[in-house]
Amino acid sequence: MSEETEIRAALGIHAAFYTALAEGDWDAMNELWASTGPVICTHPGATPILGREAVMASWRQILLEPPAIEARDAQVAMIRGLAFITCTEQIGEVRLAATKVLVWEDGGWRVALHQAGHCADPIRESTPSSGPLH
Amino acid sequence: MSEETEIRAALGIHAAFYTALAEGDWDAMNELWASTGPVICTHPGATPILGREAVMASWRQILLEPPAIEARDAQVAMIRGLAFITCTEQIGEVRLAATKVLVWEDGGWRVALHQAGHCADPIRESTPSSGPLH
Repeated sequence: MSEETEIRAALGIHAAFYTALAEGDWDAMNELWASTGPVICTHPGATPILGREAVMASWRQILLEPPAIEARDAQVAMIRGLAFITCTEQIGEVRLAATKVLVWEDGGWRVALHQAGHCADPIRESTPSSGPLH
Repeated sequence: MSEETEIRAALGIHAAFYTALAEGDWDAMNELWASTGPVICTHPGATPILGREAVMASWRQILLEPPAIEARDAQVAMIRGLAFITCTEQIGEVRLAATKVLVWEDGGWRVALHQAGHCADPIRESTPSSGPLH
């Protein structure tokens, strides 16, 4: 498979992730996460969660009240055969920065890592009260 | 090399990263990032930066005023031969959640991805005014 095809497939999974999230579709979200290795998820404002069972439990709670979320500006970098995807997320007036790492599993991409956190745009526009931390 | 040895080496790089950051040592930070592939960095409150030149330019700015930062609770997961490390970061009273992905390059681990964002602990303790977003 060409890298271009792999990238297109990764962006398809990325889009499916946000559809599942916006629609509160836990079964779809569950299907999207890798099942043959560790997974890691860091929700906005939360500490990292390591392990599939705990990660999916967190999604089960979140998907009870699905956010009106929109992903923008997705960019893919292929690193060592894994797809790294960055994007911003918009939930109403709240803006988040998100990163995912996708692994190839059973003929398709699956999510192994997701982290989202609040952001301003760009770093120089961080609120003066806090300023850039690092 | 055993996985245990790989994990110990990854935690060594993780510690070196925070030493470089706390000491404002740009040369050390520069050495720690992968040089043979794309790298991605998302600083707290900022949008994702893709590409080594832009990432290192952001560190050059940040390291002019190094934060009094301490990393805690590091956990490593080996996924597809890459080291995924989560931790929390403490800067004064500010707490951040961070994720890194390390790739093996020239006989050692190098950072290919870093993201840090503000966090409460755990997700259920998110401030009521915002609540968990996802």
